[in-house]
Amino acid sequence: MPYVNIRITREGVTEDQKRALIKGATDLLVDVLNKNPATTIVTIDEVEFENWGIGGLPAEEYRAKIKAEKAAAEAAAKG
Amino acid sequence: MPYVNIRITREGVTEDQKRALIKGATDLLVDVLNKNPATTIVTIDEVEFENWGIGGLPAEEYRAKIKAEKAAAEAAAKG
Amino acid sequence: MPYVNIRITREGVTEDQKRALIKGATDLLVDVLNKNPATTIVTIDEVEFENWGIGGLPAEEYRAKIKAEKAAAEAAAKG
Amino acid sequence: MPYVNIRITREGVTEDQKRALIKGATDLLVDVLNKNPATTIVTIDEVEFENWGIGGLPAEEYRAKIKAEKAAAEAAAKG
Amino acid sequence: MPYVNIRITREGVTEDQKRALIKGATDLLVDVLNKNPATTIVTIDEVEFENWGIGGLPAEEYRAKIKAEKAAAEAAAKG
Amino acid sequence: MPYVNIRITREGVTEDQKRALIKGATDLLVDVLNKNPATTIVTIDEVEFENWGIGGLPAEEYRAKIKAEKAAAEAAAKG
Repeated sequence: MPYVNIRITREGVTEDQKRALIKGATDLLVDVLNKNPATTIVTIDEVEFENWGIGGLPAEEYRAKIKAEKAAAEAAAKG
Repeated sequence: MPYVNIRITREGVTEDQKRALIKGATDLLVDVLNKNPATTIVTIDEVEFENWGIGGLPAEEYRAKIKAEKAAAEAAAKG
Repeated sequence: MPYVNIRITREGVTEDQKRALIKGATDLLVDVLNKNPATTIVTIDEVEFENWGIGGLPAEEYRAKIKAEKAAAEAAAKG
Repeated sequence: MPYVNIRITREGVTEDQKRALIKGATDLLVDVLNKNPATTIVTIDEVEFENWGIGGLPAEEYRAKIKAEKAAAEAAAKG
Repeated sequence: MPYVNIRITREGVTEDQKRALIKGATDLLVDVLNKNPATTIVTIDEVEFENWGIGGLPAEEYRAKIKAEKAAAEAAAKG
Repeated sequence: MPYVNIRITREGVTEDQKRALIKGATDLLVDVLNKNPATTIVTIDEVEFENWGIGGLPAEEYRAKIKAEKAAAEAAAKG
């Protein structure tokens, strides 16, 4: 009777992908701990980009920053 | 000062039902543990059907499967 | 198939009280939303006092502060 | 690599305020515990008013009740 | 940068099983949603038996009840 | 009346640090959103190292791996 909560950013996850997450998480608990799938609950929380922070920034800004840093590093490496 | 989080599938829960859940959960903490209602927080998370899994399936498919199994069992019993 | 999480301070809650919380929360979901108890999960998290904050203070300090304020107010009222 | 979840009522929180919450929570973990911001996740859950309870009532009713009590107390004091 | 929380009853889960849960949940997010494992956090909460309820009962009592019902059904079937 | 949950690895966080986290998180909600501290709850969950995963590994192994990679990179750079 486990409970699994998966939190991700909301960005067009399809029903099939959700089905795969639910099946995969349930199988994991069955395989590793021999849990009963009938009482294994999985919930997926899709969180708006502006409500998800990492590196002290909203997710979208963080991704843009990382991308810019990579581009700058590659430019510097090329010299 | 307890915190109670109730997670359910989103399926037309009315404001009155939510009021009943909030009152019921708060009363429970007051009755059983003598908690102060003024600092008891209750939140209700309504989760989309496709984001709720049980038995390794999205909730709606799981319910359909259980219903089909029951129907088959009843048909077999009638024989 | 709801999931209820009850978070309280750890302060000697007995097994009977936990049983009452589990039963009460499950009954609430059955009564208000007609949920199936067999797939209703309730978890109780007991949180150490020093890990629980309210009013910007650890719980114990907050309680002491409120108690002191009350005593002062009563003393003032008596004049 | 901490995880911080901030749950508030949904009432027009702006993107700038969310950015401030994300930055503030991340800085807090960096300042107090020397955590790495690059693996510090902050999520903000905005909960509908009718899904948030305090004092045994939905948030809006609770606020109205507190306001009414204050007004009555002030009227009595002026009395 | 997903966050996965796995809640199970505390009953002797080994370090290797925990490692398998962490790896499995992370791989799932990578495989299904192409997430970056470096910012995927997985936490495992082990909940005491008496703090976990299902079917309106603490987990251990529930299991005993289900087992007794099964035994009774089998005895009846043997007739 | 916000609720803030801070999840960190259990590694000797002191009472003073917890007090600072509680105060800091509460102040943040007061400063950014003008919330009432008296009904702002902050909980701190300390999670065992072996129950915290990142990069698909338990936290301690992940840290060791990152450290080894850094050392190797530095050795190569000096090389």
